[in-house]
Amino acid sequence: MKVFFSEDHRLHFPQAELSGGQFVTPYERPSRAEYVYQRLKQQGLRDIADPGPCDMGPVRGMMDPGFLGFLETAWDQWKAAGCAGEVIPAAIPARRMQMARPPRNIDGLAGYYCLARETAITGGTWAAALSSMASAQAAQRHVAGGARAAFALCRPPGHHATADMYGGYCFLNNAAVTAQMFRDQGAGRVAVLDIDFHHGNGTQDIFYGRGDVFFASVHGAPEDAFPYFLGFGDETGTGAGEGTTANYPLPPGTGYDRWSEALDDAIARIRAWGAEALVVSLGVDAYKDDPISFFKLDSPDFADAGRRIETLGLPTVFCMEGGYAIEAVGINTVNVLEGFLGA
Amino acid sequence: MKVFFSEDHRLHFPQAELSGGQFVTPYERPSRAEYVYQRLKQQGLRDIADPGPCDMGPVRGMMDPGFLGFLETAWDQWKAAGCAGEVIPAAIPARRMQMARPPRNIDGLAGYYCLARETAITGGTWAAALSSMASAQAAQRHVAGGARAAFALCRPPGHHATADMYGGYCFLNNAAVTAQMFRDQGAGRVAVLDIDFHHGNGTQDIFYGRGDVFFASVHGAPEDAFPYFLGFGDETGTGAGEGTTANYPLPPGTGYDRWSEALDDAIARIRAWGAEALVVSLGVDAYKDDPISFFKLDSPDFADAGRRIETLGLPTVFCMEGGYAIEAVGINTVNVLEGFLGA
Ligand SMILES: [Zn+2]
Ligand SMILES: [Zn+2]
Repeated sequence: MKVFFSEDHRLHFPQAELSGGQFVTPYERPSRAEYVYQRLKQQGLRDIADPGPCDMGPVRGMMDPGFLGFLETAWDQWKAAGCAGEVIPAAIPARRMQMARPPRNIDGLAGYYCLARETAITGGTWAAALSSMASAQAAQRHVAGGARAAFALCRPPGHHATADMYGGYCFLNNAAVTAQMFRDQGAGRVAVLDIDFHHGNGTQDIFYGRGDVFFASVHGAPEDAFPYFLGFGDETGTGAGEGTTANYPLPPGTGYDRWSEALDDAIARIRAWGAEALVVSLGVDAYKDDPISFFKLDSPDFADAGRRIETLGLPTVFCMEGGYAIEAVGINTVNVLEGFLGA
Repeated sequence: MKVFFSEDHRLHFPQAELSGGQFVTPYERPSRAEYVYQRLKQQGLRDIADPGPCDMGPVRGMMDPGFLGFLETAWDQWKAAGCAGEVIPAAIPARRMQMARPPRNIDGLAGYYCLARETAITGGTWAAALSSMASAQAAQRHVAGGARAAFALCRPPGHHATADMYGGYCFLNNAAVTAQMFRDQGAGRVAVLDIDFHHGNGTQDIFYGRGDVFFASVHGAPEDAFPYFLGFGDETGTGAGEGTTANYPLPPGTGYDRWSEALDDAIARIRAWGAEALVVSLGVDAYKDDPISFFKLDSPDFADAGRRIETLGLPTVFCMEGGYAIEAVGINTVNVLEGFLGA
């Protein structure tokens, strides 16, 4: 399986994450991608290419222009305003406040475009986010060109980002743009299957009203897990999208038996719906030793999950999402790919 | 003028404020109230009483029960969850997320009830917020008993707090409860005049749909100033409250000429509307040297503002709100009161 990976991910190297009322060393750190990269090579998945530049067309086609302009200039505006730290805003448009008026002040503006502020924007975030998106796009082009599957080793991840908000370590939604590229190139129906521990709220939000993209997510129940405010089982899509969102929120302590039942159901629904292409939001934070999650999957389970996903028989792009048990991230991620490959 | 003040304000002593992507020593700190207290005594305003306990009836009558339960238990829940710092949540119900489902997880729950996260909840916050409310209530009772005016030296402040959200250093909305107590005791029409530098978004939100409480606020334009997402000039109330909200957003650099024009207009509207009692949200962060604000009022201007407010001829409760130029806070606050007293 061909892999796309940009070393520019290192440009996003935040020093701070807001956690438990303190700043901690970010769980989402460059070494995550490096461990996956090393494990790929170790396991013989050596066809790893730089993706080249991001194609801005599909990004601009999906994302809010004000949001893109913000992401590109946030660091410079923040520094110009004299802020000493990384970009972590304080105020937000909360219940019954104005949601459609981006302020001029950069602290307010960052809050306007932010859905969760554990996540810092740094001087290299925009370039890294573009390089991450470029990997997803290159993987999509590779599959569109006839390959059965490709792996985009995306960092930063993307599935929490909406068309107009960043957060949860995500800035640009790689999986959503990848799915849209399949659509733009003629696939009538595209599915996104999100197996990251966390609900892919950004992806759901982007496609919630659309009947041409199916979104399925197996994740920690929002009552108990980030992002807390989306990913409930009764969210099934709206309007033309009614019935094309399938959420599988699962409780603390969930092991592979129950998790794989949900995965099987998601796969069955994607198959029955008639998807012509598949994007997998590949997070491995369902792992038992993940420091910020509460599922109990073991490393071999990820290989089994890959085998099950393969049964869909679809052209498939894997986009890397989360996974924070640093050394195991490489093993578990590559296990999914190897399972898919029947290795 | 009688003053009510509880030393329990000191129980709210956060060590951290999120500002510019860093934790800084909170601008809203105990010494603020102590400087006001000292200045009151220095200027001969020595009739200062402890308010006694908070009357929970008017608080429960106005605030969301889930919110009150959260405030009371937040610290214990946060510590029980193993969080090392003060209560400063990360995730929030943002655009198009579920706004009506408080999560179980304490980080999510705190985000659910939070409108701005510069503000830390500590072990003593709930007791301090109740003591602050108690001062406002005691001042209201004193005025309801026949005094022309009273001053509640409230800390923490209240005007950013809604019925179900804290933030902006505020937890319980003292001014709103005070206004409601006048209503409950028979005043047909009550006005809240908010001269704090920041828009009193919480107070506005609480009364926005009501025709019996007029809310007027002179403040930094939300495009440029906290709370960023409320306080625009076109917010005039809704339903029965249409026409009973008056916002005067003013730009950076505003001096007393322009500020006092807005104040005069607010006073004229309150007079014309026929208020029978007045609550003043008395912040003094419009001061030229305030570290987090951008108006240019000088200390004598606050005395002049007090004189103008007096011309309404109404029973008046002053509730302390913001002001962060620590030593000047005492001078400027007492100047308003002395101006009102014609001193
Ligand atoms: Zn995740
Ligand atoms: Zn203020």
